[in-house]
Amino acid sequence: MISFGSDYIEGAHPRIMERLMKTNMEQTLGYGMDEYSLKAKELIKKACHNEAVDVHFVVGGTQANLIVIAAALRPFEGVLAATSGHINVHETGAVEATGHKVLTLEAVDGKIKASQVTAYMEHFLNDPTMEHTVKPKMVYISSPTELGSIYKREEIKALREVCDQYDLLLFLDGARLGYGLVCEENDWDLEFISKMTDVFYIGGTKVGALFGEALVIRNEELKKEFRFMIKQRGAMLAKGRLLGLQFMTMFEDGLYLEMGKHGMAMAKKLAEGFKEANVKFFTKPITNQLFVILENEKIEKLREKFIFETWEEVDEKQTAVRFCTSWGTTAENIEAFLEELRGL
Amino acid sequence: MISFGSDYIEGAHPRIMERLMKTNMEQTLGYGMDEYSLKAKELIKKACHNEAVDVHFVVGGTQANLIVIAAALRPFEGVLAATSGHINVHETGAVEATGHKVLTLEAVDGKIKASQVTAYMEHFLNDPTMEHTVKPKMVYISSPTELGSIYKREEIKALREVCDQYDLLLFLDGARLGYGLVCEENDWDLEFISKMTDVFYIGGTKVGALFGEALVIRNEELKKEFRFMIKQRGAMLAKGRLLGLQFMTMFEDGLYLEMGKHGMAMAKKLAEGFKEANVKFFTKPITNQLFVILENEKIEKLREKFIFETWEEVDEKQTAVRFCTSWGTTAENIEAFLEELRGL
Amino acid sequence: MISFGSDYIEGAHPRIMERLMKTNMEQTLGYGMDEYSLKAKELIKKACHNEAVDVHFVVGGTQANLIVIAAALRPFEGVLAATSGHINVHETGAVEATGHKVLTLEAVDGKIKASQVTAYMEHFLNDPTMEHTVKPKMVYISSPTELGSIYKREEIKALREVCDQYDLLLFLDGARLGYGLVCEENDWDLEFISKMTDVFYIGGTKVGALFGEALVIRNEELKKEFRFMIKQRGAMLAKGRLLGLQFMTMFEDGLYLEMGKHGMAMAKKLAEGFKEANVKFFTKPITNQLFVILENEKIEKLREKFIFETWEEVDEKQTAVRFCTSWGTTAENIEAFLEELRGL
Amino acid sequence: MISFGSDYIEGAHPRIMERLMKTNMEQTLGYGMDEYSLKAKELIKKACHNEAVDVHFVVGGTQANLIVIAAALRPFEGVLAATSGHINVHETGAVEATGHKVLTLEAVDGKIKASQVTAYMEHFLNDPTMEHTVKPKMVYISSPTELGSIYKREEIKALREVCDQYDLLLFLDGARLGYGLVCEENDWDLEFISKMTDVFYIGGTKVGALFGEALVIRNEELKKEFRFMIKQRGAMLAKGRLLGLQFMTMFEDGLYLEMGKHGMAMAKKLAEGFKEANVKFFTKPITNQLFVILENEKIEKLREKFIFETWEEVDEKQTAVRFCTSWGTTAENIEAFLEELRGL
Repeated sequence: MISFGSDYIEGAHPRIMERLMKTNMEQTLGYGMDEYSLKAKELIKKACHNEAVDVHFVVGGTQANLIVIAAALRPFEGVLAATSGHINVHETGAVEATGHKVLTLEAVDGKIKASQVTAYMEHFLNDPTMEHTVKPKMVYISSPTELGSIYKREEIKALREVCDQYDLLLFLDGARLGYGLVCEENDWDLEFISKMTDVFYIGGTKVGALFGEALVIRNEELKKEFRFMIKQRGAMLAKGRLLGLQFMTMFEDGLYLEMGKHGMAMAKKLAEGFKEANVKFFTKPITNQLFVILENEKIEKLREKFIFETWEEVDEKQTAVRFCTSWGTTAENIEAFLEELRGL
Repeated sequence: MISFGSDYIEGAHPRIMERLMKTNMEQTLGYGMDEYSLKAKELIKKACHNEAVDVHFVVGGTQANLIVIAAALRPFEGVLAATSGHINVHETGAVEATGHKVLTLEAVDGKIKASQVTAYMEHFLNDPTMEHTVKPKMVYISSPTELGSIYKREEIKALREVCDQYDLLLFLDGARLGYGLVCEENDWDLEFISKMTDVFYIGGTKVGALFGEALVIRNEELKKEFRFMIKQRGAMLAKGRLLGLQFMTMFEDGLYLEMGKHGMAMAKKLAEGFKEANVKFFTKPITNQLFVILENEKIEKLREKFIFETWEEVDEKQTAVRFCTSWGTTAENIEAFLEELRGL
Repeated sequence: MISFGSDYIEGAHPRIMERLMKTNMEQTLGYGMDEYSLKAKELIKKACHNEAVDVHFVVGGTQANLIVIAAALRPFEGVLAATSGHINVHETGAVEATGHKVLTLEAVDGKIKASQVTAYMEHFLNDPTMEHTVKPKMVYISSPTELGSIYKREEIKALREVCDQYDLLLFLDGARLGYGLVCEENDWDLEFISKMTDVFYIGGTKVGALFGEALVIRNEELKKEFRFMIKQRGAMLAKGRLLGLQFMTMFEDGLYLEMGKHGMAMAKKLAEGFKEANVKFFTKPITNQLFVILENEKIEKLREKFIFETWEEVDEKQTAVRFCTSWGTTAENIEAFLEELRGL
Repeated sequence: MISFGSDYIEGAHPRIMERLMKTNMEQTLGYGMDEYSLKAKELIKKACHNEAVDVHFVVGGTQANLIVIAAALRPFEGVLAATSGHINVHETGAVEATGHKVLTLEAVDGKIKASQVTAYMEHFLNDPTMEHTVKPKMVYISSPTELGSIYKREEIKALREVCDQYDLLLFLDGARLGYGLVCEENDWDLEFISKMTDVFYIGGTKVGALFGEALVIRNEELKKEFRFMIKQRGAMLAKGRLLGLQFMTMFEDGLYLEMGKHGMAMAKKLAEGFKEANVKFFTKPITNQLFVILENEKIEKLREKFIFETWEEVDEKQTAVRFCTSWGTTAENIEAFLEELRGL
């Protein structure tokens, strides 16, 4: 079986594995105090052209989200997110388990607009009994989104402005950031995002690391005692060097973006194949997740050899399905799939 | 610098690294649904001679502890632990962050006695306003303990009995279980502990894995929907296979105990060296953590070349310090240290 | 100013105040162990024709809701509620602060249908990665609802069936139950609801008590150690007798329903006045909250002498507003208002 | 039966009851926005000779404690308290349920010393892995304490200094403040305490109100959005006027201190009776809780007619017991008791 099921189906990029092998028997300090972790943090600051940020590594995305939100909010504060946002749907209530409500905004293409935030805040501020409701304090976005779309420079700037206006924090979940940064539609970089958000993270798990996400914090309040939060939620890896080594490898000579580019090249190849085969897109193909509409019969056939995710029913005969490419996808696998598709 | 600072200072056993390399580009299902994880679970059940348990993998020990406790207790219930217990001292209030109080018992050598649990429960049950106090529902122990001691078979049986009598769950934190299982004083095995506790874990992080702990659950209530808990707390690794592969490797041909034995052989060598050098022990040397009393001057000298942890001040001139050996400690390093020690 | 702002704007029914005065200097046990509390519990069981329930008193509605939900759910479980439900909108995230997500269903007239619960559960159960989502475990409804509507006998039976089918608890928030029980459309009684729900509460605060709600628990699991939950959340009144005395007074000779009837008689009088004045209803008048549409100019005029709540904008010139009657509303006040209304 | 069981065994001072009766049918705004609540807050500020504080009313002491602590601390911060502190022992883990650890200090007479705080903080700050432990952020004291002792002016000043030095908040639980303020040993007043603490509360429940505590907040950070916290934890009484009316009555013409004085006069009378009868004191009699040592036989006899609490076993034949006086204790009851005592 060939899988386009997700972008975490292989291990890690071979250069990362080699680095782990090579350093395996070295003795280092634990909990991220080792030289590799320190070096990796420096490299990420450099990649952001921003020395004013703090960098921390955690093992996974749900951890990153719940730790940032729990660290940033007072008990009665909530986080605004798209109804389709990962924290609202796919983290088993991890945010609520920290005591905070996810306040939802109906999103188009997985994205929330600055004007939606304004409308929400105006409604909140004009409520004479506002203290009976949850106080919004943060805007959570992801780019790429759950639906493969990305936020453009102007959209992020508009969100930053509305956050400044209403004293909200802006948090970007970059689980798939590597693909977003190099896709054709993109018009911003790490420096931009490190200055526009209060905190964001650079996803490793879905972009070629074995595991790990790099949190980048600009907000001074949020920086304070952040390691206590990481430790309390069980996200401070004893062998923290594993995270340091991986991010050092990804950021010392451009591997991170290189992997993103490979994933996008594969996505493009696959998208073109779909177009040639006259397959309709469910959402516009922008990053490494492609959502297409296939007839149920074809889906059944394809699943004999290929793995991909069901997204949602379109009508009785057709279903929207998701294909993921990644740093690890091979051209051969895509060709094998397209051949099968064309043969149907 | 040579380090005896802890048992998580190197990477992983070479056989584990090889397995990770070899399978690196394979495509598998995520979140622990892959074949390696399933196989590893079977091997652990077999090692326990107990098919009735459920096995789950999580990334680290704090996660293991907080997830088990949050899953097992109702909001007004607490967990009994030694004052020196890891959950009471070294997890930044991770248990309290899930809403539960750690109820402490003064421990001798890091161990709590069945009679202490009885006394606590009798006091609780005879309080006419008991609902003003936290209801004890679980006993948390670790073996080896924070002080390197271990629970003996009869002690664990006594705790099981008192737990049955008072409707308490028994949870064993086995972060260093591999060393405990093979130390000279030990008189029990995985089968025994899997039948005596409601839940325990087999530590990987400190016994030769890159990271990871294997939770083994016997209690039927606790088994229910346990994966929801793991996911909610951010402990369900996307590339769950990494945990599966490591535990498969450690349990398919005895590597886990083999690593424990190496760590204990090194501990013995080091302990004998201390004895020969007339160094006094702060606690009896039993497992891979050795606590000795050294003069402050000597400590200063030794720290020019060796890393080890300060434990506590003994008097103005002497301090108790901790030396850890592990699966990765070399005989050469111990010899180098002992030579230096003898030379002082 | 005459107020129709809510049903908690006066103190308590004079018979309750007399009882409090008369017993004021008596010495009783604290925390609800006094004779009055025990007697009140017996009277409520009798009113329910149901000896199998447990009764507990708490000070207010938010407390009642958060305590029941926190007591009933495991950490990864959530509660289904109408988007307009009190717990979802007007309790400052009290439920989330206990760690649980409110899972929302779009409601018509503030009511959720059994078929909506079925649809939600089928979707949940068919999700192959369900453990990435919150597990629904309870259905929360209120009757009367936030919009003044009530659930009919058949609707509640259907919800009970769907709850049984999917292993869900049914919880009814009866903050305004006294008005619902005696309104014309109602077709059920305390016995029915005490047998259909796992837990519900009889609202005192909005139906003539100074404060206090009586939780009635049928579910055996939920009954266990419930007083621990009440105490932990700060809802166990030291002078618990105050709650006991009030509910005893309301249930010893029919005062509770009598007060409900008075509130409904006043609501009817007011509704008829609106009809005569050709005022349009925003929602059908059923219980003691009347939602009508008034021109903004008229609203401004009326607010010189009367208090009532803005509900929502209808168009540029008209707004939906809410008028509440209660056990304490006087016919004179309604007449004064209607005269003013007619004069506009 | 005559009770010395606690100071919450009667209702409220008759003047409070009269005020509630007189205003019963008035219509007011809810949730503490009424004129009585505003007036009461002004009176308390005046009593504190401190216009810079915020005042909020909550229903009970556990609520007051959990709300203040949850509002003040970040998730990884804890509160230092005496091992015997109310929050550590008698609130069913209410503080832990908000996610925070109670860090205990062994107390003499229920009081913690500034030097203990210093020692704790120095240990914490010198721990190289401090982020593995809970960060202390608040010192919780009560005066009178659980053992009837009080903090003296110099002790509180010393605590304030150490709190300033280590960036800690100082919180005083004044559940029995009325008795402490007027006892012979006392050397401070409301102005002093309102300037020395970051937040404290004036207890109503145990000093003559039906229920209610007045939180007085000096700390600017803590003031922010405090009403959200009160509402979220279910402590914002719908008929907030009930709290306002009570505190207005207690603070408009000295009733609060008057009630304290009565309680202390009764305590003195009882203490003298004990002395005359050669009864040994378990702790020095200072406020309205008297702890004496009685022979078990006498206790049994006395319990035929009188209620009082067992404190702890002294030896096989003797037990320490607690007698409480209050604003409501009558001289006749004390005389009746002393007569009985002398007759044994």
